[in-house]
This record gives sequence, structure tokens and C-alpha cells, in this order.
Amino acid sequence: MARKVFGWAARDTSGVLSPFHFHRRENGEKDVTFKVLYCGICHTDLHMVKNDWGLSAYPVVPGHEIVGVVTDVGSKVDKFKVGDKVGVGCLVGSCRSCDDCTNNLENYCPKMVLTYGGAKYFDGTTTFGGYSDLMVADEHFVVGVPNDIALDVAAPLLCAGITVYSPLKYFGLDKPGVHVGIVGLGGLGHVAVKFAKAMGAKVTVISTSPNKKEEAIQRLGADSFLVSRDQDQMKASTGTMDGIIDTVSAGHPLLPLIGLLKSHGKLVMVGAPDKPLELPALPLIFGRKMVVGSCVGGMNETQEMIDFAAKHNITPDIEVVPMNYVNTALERLSKGDVRYRFVIDIGNTLKPSL
Amino acid sequence: MARKVFGWAARDTSGVLSPFHFHRRENGEKDVTFKVLYCGICHTDLHMVKNDWGLSAYPVVPGHEIVGVVTDVGSKVDKFKVGDKVGVGCLVGSCRSCDDCTNNLENYCPKMVLTYGGAKYFDGTTTFGGYSDLMVADEHFVVGVPNDIALDVAAPLLCAGITVYSPLKYFGLDKPGVHVGIVGLGGLGHVAVKFAKAMGAKVTVISTSPNKKEEAIQRLGADSFLVSRDQDQMKASTGTMDGIIDTVSAGHPLLPLIGLLKSHGKLVMVGAPDKPLELPALPLIFGRKMVVGSCVGGMNETQEMIDFAAKHNITPDIEVVPMNYVNTALERLSKGDVRYRFVIDIGNTLKPSL
Repeated sequence: MARKVFGWAARDTSGVLSPFHFHRRENGEKDVTFKVLYCGICHTDLHMVKNDWGLSAYPVVPGHEIVGVVTDVGSKVDKFKVGDKVGVGCLVGSCRSCDDCTNNLENYCPKMVLTYGGAKYFDGTTTFGGYSDLMVADEHFVVGVPNDIALDVAAPLLCAGITVYSPLKYFGLDKPGVHVGIVGLGGLGHVAVKFAKAMGAKVTVISTSPNKKEEAIQRLGADSFLVSRDQDQMKASTGTMDGIIDTVSAGHPLLPLIGLLKSHGKLVMVGAPDKPLELPALPLIFGRKMVVGSCVGGMNETQEMIDFAAKHNITPDIEVVPMNYVNTALERLSKGDVRYRFVIDIGNTLKPSL
Repeated sequence: MARKVFGWAARDTSGVLSPFHFHRRENGEKDVTFKVLYCGICHTDLHMVKNDWGLSAYPVVPGHEIVGVVTDVGSKVDKFKVGDKVGVGCLVGSCRSCDDCTNNLENYCPKMVLTYGGAKYFDGTTTFGGYSDLMVADEHFVVGVPNDIALDVAAPLLCAGITVYSPLKYFGLDKPGVHVGIVGLGGLGHVAVKFAKAMGAKVTVISTSPNKKEEAIQRLGADSFLVSRDQDQMKASTGTMDGIIDTVSAGHPLLPLIGLLKSHGKLVMVGAPDKPLELPALPLIFGRKMVVGSCVGGMNETQEMIDFAAKHNITPDIEVVPMNYVNTALERLSKGDVRYRFVIDIGNTLKPSL
């Protein structure tokens, strides 16, 4: 028997969200059901509610930075019990048998099921995200939230956090002696600075806005700051970075960033510009430099990331908003008007309409 | 006292070569002087004689696939003696002290000195390439040519060979069970097929020309062939390759190639399109795929490559031409009209003009 759930959904490409009643599957033997308390607003939500990528199937209930408290566990659930604090990020399913799945890289499984946006779960039902009061997921895709991290700040770690943590680790940018550039100081970028610093790297923030310098250095702890439009500054930093995490999702030139890399340096794109970027071949060739994408992380790594965040006291900077503020929040997010992540207080402000 | 040398040079952006008398330094204590017998014609020569990249300083004596027989060795030369068969590739100098140099990656040293094209050697002299009767180089930048490989076929290994060998090794595409795509069946591509096969990989040639299929499979030993313009063929091969060596130096779309890669696959660019290519971000992100450049190889690796070629009987397919045919050869090369590498018979056909 399916469970009644209440949330907010976009119905068309206007992207405007409004109250929406729907169902989720009854808790299965490997499933965890949890009452949603907080859900972060990711830049992806903005693209999906407006169908910018042509992937959306309406109604879309967004949200893939979902945390709450367990209310039901199936008979074969090993990892969680009622009352546990848990979270779900960007994926709720994968094939569990391909090379990627067996290497704990469920996030790259070709049959990976996104938490929302028109994806079909294996039972044929459409997936709906965390702008809703109740979540059901296979325990494999649920992570435990450590007790020493507050639920509201934990939420954005489940997408923004793992999105930057995974490439910092995979590309060897997680150690002292390494110089990491972070492009863009938004939801992803500000968390990337905190993770990279906690890992021991030297961190330089690269931004178009000179007025973010004080923030980057004083508040977030970056070692230095580069204004990407200042050609003298950029030139002086040529060939100094081992890697760059590029969080910008608007179109932007790659050549100046490639120039900042040492030979064998890595430019990691985690933002997702919808139009192709211009890639100059020669600067890559002459330095064996690479441009690479990275998409969230596997489930083991996501648990590792949130445990690391708890241990090192890494918390996203958030603005908690009520559910009925969501359309304004999305509008403000589209203008970059948030420092740095909106989190919806689902538990206290999502009131079922009659 | 400088040595008189005779060769052929381009004098301006017409790119037309004609006889040219010049000097090289007297053999120093760490230097090797050798009589040039053969020199390959690389696609780079075509760009450099016409100054396509804005790097050239005229007169340009091209040629960086240079082989011959040692005539003089300096008092502190350890590796070579008079009569040895040797070669010089794309570089003749580097700082010998930076991170790259100490890691045997002289080819990525910021102070690396190109074999020709306007580069200045450390003594202030301009470097001149192998379309000439005599070569002088520091022994560190000279490789030994094994006795069981003929000098004419050895020449193209010094650029084309190492250009494809190095990324096959570095990016882990050098073993059984790995599926490698080779884009473009020219000077680099045909050698890449031979190396990748000798390393044990499964090799698919990707080409715009269906009429190269028989050649690729029957003669070069590729396992399969894909026509890049055939969307059905390309679709059927989606997500099947661990890596691709892209040897094409004309502008071309990257998206179809990225689609051929498995997740975590590597698209290695060794051709050098002068204009930026279009890079779609999402396909990289969703598969943690990378686009990376690679430029020849270090000196140790170049020796390893030529030894590997000798051991596995890997020889480029060449058309040997006389010196006075060079302008016609360059013209034919610009049209892709050679299977697959021109090699100039310097020893027998370079006659000093009066």
C-alpha cells in the first residue's frame, strides 16, 4: 500500500512551485522511511523545475539534499533504526552489479536513478525529491548523519559537499603541499574552500567579484584570492596550481584557468554549463593538463564525506527559509543572492493544504 | 669554433623550403655530433614553416625526427661512441632541475628547448632541425637506435612514436582487457594502432573515411573500425572505450568521441587544432570523463619507446623521398596524401649547393 506524501512541485516550465499531494511506495524490507526535516535548495533544482536540460517530467518535486529522522525500517535493513538521523542525496538507486557499482561508484552507474526529476524507480514509479514531508529509500542510498552535526547544515553536504569532496580526493588535491584553486564562491565553492583547507591544501579562490575577497579569506579561510578579470593577477599566478575545482555553471572561458595550472594539473568541472565551452587544445597538450568532470560521489564516499565534515567541523553557510518562501528563494538563487545555500525548514513549515 | 652545416629552410610564411647554409656549435664536452641520414616530415613541420602558431622565427630549418651516425663525442659523454646509431626528437634542451626534469619529464619543462623553429638554445644560438646534414646535441637529448631497427623507419618514432606511446602508458591504456580508440589514421594514428596492439589492448580505429577500414584491420591489425559519420555505428559503440588517442589536428567535434568512452574514460588529444574545440560539460560530468593533452615524452621514455618498438618489430609505414622533393611532400602531407609518413633520405640526397 502506498504512503500519502505532501510536498511542493513545479507543474510546467514556469518553474513555479505549489503544494502537491502524491504517493511513495510502502516501506520495503530493505527500505528506510524518514520524516524529512530539512532540504537544501541546489542550483540543479533551478534547472530541473524549468526543464533547462530537457530531462524533466512534470510534476517535479525537487530536492536532493534531504535530511530527517527515521520512522520505519524494513526487516532486512542493517544500517539504521527508528530515530536515527539520516540523509538522502542525489541518487536513490543503481544496478548494483556493473563495474561502477561494484567499485562503490553508484553515482556513475548507467542505470543510476536520480532522486527526482522524472526518473523512474525500478518499480516503475516516478521519483520525487525532498521538498516533501516523507522520504522512502533503499538503505544503500541512505547515509547516517553524525550526531555532532546539526541537521540543517548537514543537508547541503549531501549534494554540494560530496560534489566537491569527491574530486578533491580522487584527483589527489587533498593533501598539504598541494595548491587548489576554487572557481566561484557559491553553494559549492564555499564548501570546497572549507574541505580543501581541512585536507591541508593551500587554497586560492578565483572569482569575478573583487568584493568577495575579504569573505573568502577572513571568513572561509582561503589562503589567497584571485580576481579572474584582473589580467595582471592572473598572469602572476600562471602555472602555480595543481588542480582547480570549477563550480561555475554559467558559460565562462577555460583558457585563463588552464593557464593557472602547473603541468599535469587538473581542471575539474562540477558546475554544469548547458552550452559547450571553448576548449583550446594546445595549452592542454603542452602541459599534459586535463579538463575533467565529476558528479557527486558514491555512497561509501558520501558517508566518508559527512563523517569527515563532522570531525573537522565543516558546515555550509546556510539561510534557513520556510516552505512557502521557496519560489522567492529560487528567484534569489538564480541571481546569486544567497550566502551560500538556502535550506528549507520542512519539519516546521511544510503545512498540508486541505 | 662553429661547424658549417647545410640544410633546407623556409624563409617566410609561404613555407617554401630552399637550400640554406648555417652553423652549429662545436661539439662540447657533453655533446654528441652526428651525420644525419634520415629525417621524418611531421605535421608540425607544416605548421612551423608557415608560422600557423605564431611561434616561428625565420629562417626555419624543420625536422625533429632525426636519425644518423655519431661522428664526434665530447670528453664527458657516457652513453655514446663514434659510429653509434642515434636519434634526436622534438627537444634538445631543458633546465634539468625543475620538478618535471627531475621526474624525467623534460618534455614538460617550462624551459624546454625545441629542436627547431625559433627557439634559442642556452648559448643564445637559434636551433635548427634535421633537414640538414649534421646535428649537434647534448647527449641527454640523444637516444640510441637499436641495431635491429632500420634507420629510415626509426626516424618517425622520435616524434610520432613517442607522441602516442607516452599517453598509452601514462593513462593505463597499455594492457590486455583495455579498449582503445584511435582517431585519425595518419602519421600518428597508424603508429598508435601498432603500439596499442603490441601492448595487448583491443584497438578500434575511428575515421571519417570508410575506405580506410580494410587498411586499418588487415594491414595495421586493428580489431575494429568505426566510421565517425555513421551515427548508427557510433551509437552502437557508446560507452565501450577506456581511452581514445585523438590524433586529428583539424577542428572536429569532441562530443561523439566523449560518448564512446566508458565512465572515467580518457580522451587524449595529441593532434593540435589551432582553434578552440567545443567542449560539452555535462557528458564529462556525468561520467567523470576527461579530456587531456599529451606532448611527446621524456628522454628516458623515448629510449624505452624505441627499444619497445625494436623488440616488437613496430615500424612506421613510410615513403622515403629525396631532399629536393620536400616542398611537394609538404604539399601532399597537407592533403593527407601519404601512407603514412614521409622520410627524407638526407644521407644520399642532400647535396650542398655551391
